[in-house]
Amino acid sequence: MALLSALATEIVIPACAVVGIVFSLVQWLLVSRVKLTPEPRAPSPNSNKNGYGDYLIEEEEGVNDQGVVAKCAEIQSAISEGATSFLFTEYQYVGVFMVAFAVLIFLFLGSVESFSTQSQPCTYNPSNMCKPALATAAFSTVSFLLGALTSVLSGFLGMKIATYANARTTLEARKGVGKAFIVAFRSGAVMGFLLAASGLLVLYIAINLFKLYYGNDWEGLFEAITGYGLGGSSMALFGRVGGGIYTKAADVGADLVGKVERNIPEDDPRNPAVIADNVGDNVGDIAGMGSDLFGSYAESSCAALVVASISSFGIDHDFTAMCYPLLISSMGILVCLITTLFATDFFEIKAVKEIEPALKKQLIISTILMTVGIAIVSWIALPSSFTIYNFGSQKVVKNWQLFLCVGVGLWAGLIIGFVTEYYTSNAYSPVQDVADSCRTGAATNVIFGLALGYKSVIIPIFAIAISIFVSFSFAAMYGIAVAALGMLSTIATGLAIDAYGPISDNAGGIAEMAGMSHRIRERTDALDAAGNTTAAIGKGFAIGSAALVSLALFGAFVSRAAISTVDVLTPKVFIGLIVGAMLPYWFSAMTMKSVGSAALKMVEEVRRQFNSIPGLMEGHAKPDYATCVKISTDASIREMIPPGALVMLTPLIVGILFGVETLSGVLAGSLVSGVQIAISASNTGGAWDNAKKYIEAGASEHARTLGPKGSEPHKAAVIGDTIGDPLKDTSGPSLNILIKLMAVESLVFAPFFATHGGLLFRIF
Amino acid sequence: MALLSALATEIVIPACAVVGIVFSLVQWLLVSRVKLTPEPRAPSPNSNKNGYGDYLIEEEEGVNDQGVVAKCAEIQSAISEGATSFLFTEYQYVGVFMVAFAVLIFLFLGSVESFSTQSQPCTYNPSNMCKPALATAAFSTVSFLLGALTSVLSGFLGMKIATYANARTTLEARKGVGKAFIVAFRSGAVMGFLLAASGLLVLYIAINLFKLYYGNDWEGLFEAITGYGLGGSSMALFGRVGGGIYTKAADVGADLVGKVERNIPEDDPRNPAVIADNVGDNVGDIAGMGSDLFGSYAESSCAALVVASISSFGIDHDFTAMCYPLLISSMGILVCLITTLFATDFFEIKAVKEIEPALKKQLIISTILMTVGIAIVSWIALPSSFTIYNFGSQKVVKNWQLFLCVGVGLWAGLIIGFVTEYYTSNAYSPVQDVADSCRTGAATNVIFGLALGYKSVIIPIFAIAISIFVSFSFAAMYGIAVAALGMLSTIATGLAIDAYGPISDNAGGIAEMAGMSHRIRERTDALDAAGNTTAAIGKGFAIGSAALVSLALFGAFVSRAAISTVDVLTPKVFIGLIVGAMLPYWFSAMTMKSVGSAALKMVEEVRRQFNSIPGLMEGHAKPDYATCVKISTDASIREMIPPGALVMLTPLIVGILFGVETLSGVLAGSLVSGVQIAISASNTGGAWDNAKKYIEAGASEHARTLGPKGSEPHKAAVIGDTIGDPLKDTSGPSLNILIKLMAVESLVFAPFFATHGGLLFRIF
Repeated sequence: MALLSALATEIVIPACAVVGIVFSLVQWLLVSRVKLTPEPRAPSPNSNKNGYGDYLIEEEEGVNDQGVVAKCAEIQSAISEGATSFLFTEYQYVGVFMVAFAVLIFLFLGSVESFSTQSQPCTYNPSNMCKPALATAAFSTVSFLLGALTSVLSGFLGMKIATYANARTTLEARKGVGKAFIVAFRSGAVMGFLLAASGLLVLYIAINLFKLYYGNDWEGLFEAITGYGLGGSSMALFGRVGGGIYTKAADVGADLVGKVERNIPEDDPRNPAVIADNVGDNVGDIAGMGSDLFGSYAESSCAALVVASISSFGIDHDFTAMCYPLLISSMGILVCLITTLFATDFFEIKAVKEIEPALKKQLIISTILMTVGIAIVSWIALPSSFTIYNFGSQKVVKNWQLFLCVGVGLWAGLIIGFVTEYYTSNAYSPVQDVADSCRTGAATNVIFGLALGYKSVIIPIFAIAISIFVSFSFAAMYGIAVAALGMLSTIATGLAIDAYGPISDNAGGIAEMAGMSHRIRERTDALDAAGNTTAAIGKGFAIGSAALVSLALFGAFVSRAAISTVDVLTPKVFIGLIVGAMLPYWFSAMTMKSVGSAALKMVEEVRRQFNSIPGLMEGHAKPDYATCVKISTDASIREMIPPGALVMLTPLIVGILFGVETLSGVLAGSLVSGVQIAISASNTGGAWDNAKKYIEAGASEHARTLGPKGSEPHKAAVIGDTIGDPLKDTSGPSLNILIKLMAVESLVFAPFFATHGGLLFRIF
Repeated sequence: MALLSALATEIVIPACAVVGIVFSLVQWLLVSRVKLTPEPRAPSPNSNKNGYGDYLIEEEEGVNDQGVVAKCAEIQSAISEGATSFLFTEYQYVGVFMVAFAVLIFLFLGSVESFSTQSQPCTYNPSNMCKPALATAAFSTVSFLLGALTSVLSGFLGMKIATYANARTTLEARKGVGKAFIVAFRSGAVMGFLLAASGLLVLYIAINLFKLYYGNDWEGLFEAITGYGLGGSSMALFGRVGGGIYTKAADVGADLVGKVERNIPEDDPRNPAVIADNVGDNVGDIAGMGSDLFGSYAESSCAALVVASISSFGIDHDFTAMCYPLLISSMGILVCLITTLFATDFFEIKAVKEIEPALKKQLIISTILMTVGIAIVSWIALPSSFTIYNFGSQKVVKNWQLFLCVGVGLWAGLIIGFVTEYYTSNAYSPVQDVADSCRTGAATNVIFGLALGYKSVIIPIFAIAISIFVSFSFAAMYGIAVAALGMLSTIATGLAIDAYGPISDNAGGIAEMAGMSHRIRERTDALDAAGNTTAAIGKGFAIGSAALVSLALFGAFVSRAAISTVDVLTPKVFIGLIVGAMLPYWFSAMTMKSVGSAALKMVEEVRRQFNSIPGLMEGHAKPDYATCVKISTDASIREMIPPGALVMLTPLIVGILFGVETLSGVLAGSLVSGVQIAISASNTGGAWDNAKKYIEAGASEHARTLGPKGSEPHKAAVIGDTIGDPLKDTSGPSLNILIKLMAVESLVFAPFFATHGGLLFRIF
């Protein structure tokens, strides 16, 4: 048996979650020390000396200009209001859908045993009696709603802290880049820890409450818990797609008129779409990303738990070993907590060039510490030998093998992160080559950028393939699930550096809009450039973990649907495979077209305002920001429905009409095809963005031959950047959710499909 | 038994092939009537009245200007020389590779039974004795070389007739669009029939010669014959990739400087890259496409034959039924012959708007006639009931079921053709939407174009999936193979309308270069515009058939490698699947980057010539065409090696190191992922090309608001067109070959992999 007693497990998990939440609140408190109300002196967050002495340490800019503080506060509240109002509108629509889907879950799962309230023989162990299917239906519905709610909370709180921190980062930038970095990073940490800890806590509480009813029927208990993953991911889908369309419609629209036609800088307050653009960063990159990673986290936990429940952990009712996935996450919170201190307290950023290394060090430190953490958890929480369910048989696994499974996922994540960095940072030759190709115009820029994205797929796929092979060989589907958990175990740090990007981006926007000096804008730009790369790294993690998670869910689905093999060489499976591989294309076509159409509308509105509002270009009149916000809101709400429906309905339609074999094919096909498009789309977009920044910054001899801003190569680079926007922020990252969500949905509905599915083949 | 006797079969197949060859020669003769030597009067091809009376029928332009004829002849010979010299250089390099690969085949296959010359028990029917593996190795090598040689011949002859016909089409355009159409179409038909007939004839002769040695060992005989498909496809790979890089490096390079920087029209003789561009059309679109479709044809025949040899046809030595695939092809030649007459003799093109319908009618007529043809062949050549090998067991099949298999493939091809037309022709809303998005610049054009390509995948994939399901359900892998053959049965017509495109394109180029009047250029442009759409349709066919062919080959490989299931849920297979799905991206990255780099070199050379040759822009001096031809030649020869190596080596490396299960995964993954990228890339490119042409032609009110040439929307459209060039002519169509070639290579090496493969897993 495990070294850690069941009672200790019961205490450790919530304790770690609470530590995470407290830590996140402390960070919030530290951020809130930066005051947004005009005061005699703006106090520094790290000292109670009212800023005394800071003058001596760093060169400051306009710290005493109280008008700027008021202006920043005003812009911040406009962004925050826009984001809040969008999220409320979005949640209203999605809420209706969620309730309808919850009813569907209850009806479909309840119908498996014709709504009988009688106990039934267990699925995997028919000699025991399990709770009725009706109970699983009811509890699945509850956990679905719980997952959706937690996801809403994650996204909403992330957005709130981001819009709380953006203006504060701008104000701190007056005091130096190091101070601004700390505010932005702390705010990211608030989101990261809040999300990781609340996800863990809610799941833990749900398991304990469900156990009151289920008792020793762990098979039913953890089957019902999978609804949590489905709820989290469904919300994330709409968050990602809606937020992605919102942010890119505003961004592309603002850039096409502002930068290209009117030749005004990014985030210029004269641009009517500028508030919408900044709102978009918060609802897309922050709320959307938060929901997405929460979904991955919830799903990989559920996938691991459901497989564990039919392995020796579940059969022997070994609670500590059963909770291994949760213990890994708990350890992750502690590790990330220490890692965060390296960025905020142990070292100090003193120069611009230290920002990117500081963020990268976060990844490396957390990975190294976590490797030790995993070893400890595997040693104390697992029996030295146990069995894992493997498609009908039980496979003997040692605890060190499980350690390797988690570890391989963790390190694969780091490799994917670094490869992503190599292909998207303008410090390396791939992006520089793309920038160089701008010499001959936008066409070669696009050709080179697409080629770069395609090429950037190679190593991540090998990393994923090796993780799959190792973890699959050691511990079958459970191995895959814990490998995904390994990749996500440092989620708090990952989210912190990920959220840091849009916060810095917003901070720059606020600096520009508040008319702050060029030097301050340079500081926020430096923060933002590092954020661009980390955002790409974050997307790499999200995609890599999504691939592992959906494979684990797929395996759980196949087990639950009682299919023994998924043989490519049967027509039912193969047509599923090829159609599944097509779905990411269909989905991308929808989302890209949506961004394109919404951007066209935005362009027309921005042009209309420039042409009809007298004095706007001269800066005498204020643009009508609200109309642009409304265009983005309306477009994203309307346009998120068809792609959302495609993802949510496909498993239902395929399962009901064609049955579980074809559905297996669809899941495998969309997984192997979607992961490639997702990686290439997000890296192509990131590379174009940074190629443009490379030319703009003009930091090297080579870069200066391409620039300056407004040169022909720079114009070509701006076109590439604009094309990349929907690729990297809408269609690419949404594909993660497509592959995960279809898998978890299939898993939840597996009992229904196995009983009532495949109508079409039954008829013929 | 079948109604058709074995003797009749022996006569009918070569007879049909000879009819095809004779028909093709007749067409060549008719084309050759257009004289390229200056004469007192240029005679019309359809009359011996020395052109009398033609004056009354159509308005003619400059028919009596003998200087133009000489000029056209000169340009034609420059193009022909460039193309011939490129192909010779290419064949030299590829020849070395082919010989080396032939040696490899012999050694690998010979080593299966340690080069023993003893007879051995048959693989599928171990109670019988079969010829030694060494014999199979030797005959596989011979048929490999035979396939490669036929492929070279197909590509080379196609190029020859195309460069023979292009100037003649230009000259006929002086007499009217109808006459020019007939010359271009006849020349296409020469290539189509020559290729279909010689492919059939060589295969037929090879089977009969091999039979002299193999006697009743049909299992070994048809296993050796699969080398024919491998040879054809390997050649096609280099033809497609090399030709694709050649043509697009020249095209992109010529456009970037000529159209964008210097504002001179396409094909302007002042552009130094103009000859290279026209050579490229012939070596890429003609020779490459010819080799590609020949490869598909050879492979689907081989896949069908190898499965048939272990089904009741082969076991009972029923020669007529065994030759069912060849009989289908024979019938196809006759059907296409009749179909061709509809275009050239039964009706006459009198107006520009009749061209596209005439070409589309070719597809419809051939499909309808072929449906009857298939029914006849299925009725007379097949027993009413027989058994087909299905992964270890024998499946009973009726002749009408096999008719449905072939038919579903044939009609799926037509559907794919029409969907392709819908998405790439500027007569419909998708391309018009893309053109409209040029209003807001190149970025929206690219976003909409990519979305269009992604969307255009949906229906073709469903068509392919349905064909697979139907044919797989009826007749397992044999069904898939004959479905592919059904799609390719009208290959002569398909190739004719496909080759028609580049011939018209070249004709336009020659008209421009020879300084012919604007009205003649308008006529050749009209021919070319129709050709653009038919080229896209041809690519649709090529991809659709490639998907079916490679699935059939995959099935044959699995049977030969003695794997019973390809279970996605085993780690060996799944890692193959995900890595296989990545390969098309890797391959596309290589080929696109190659085009980009070669184009950059071309741009530099063209710029250099414009800057350094005095009087070039004014038309006083001649550019140095030869240097541009050399740049394209060198670049394509050098750059085709890495992608070629990727495709050729992957099956070998995977098979030897990881074994047949992982290789199965790789094949399935690359198939389902590659087919999507291939379709979307070729349609995106086609749509951009026609969106540009839509704006240029200005045929509708809407189009005129976007134009004229040189307007901002037009410039955006030109950027899209340039990006689309490598997508639609290099990376997209090469992917067909990637998926087919890896499958056929695996099939040929299957005995070796099954015996010696999987080293890595054996060690651990």
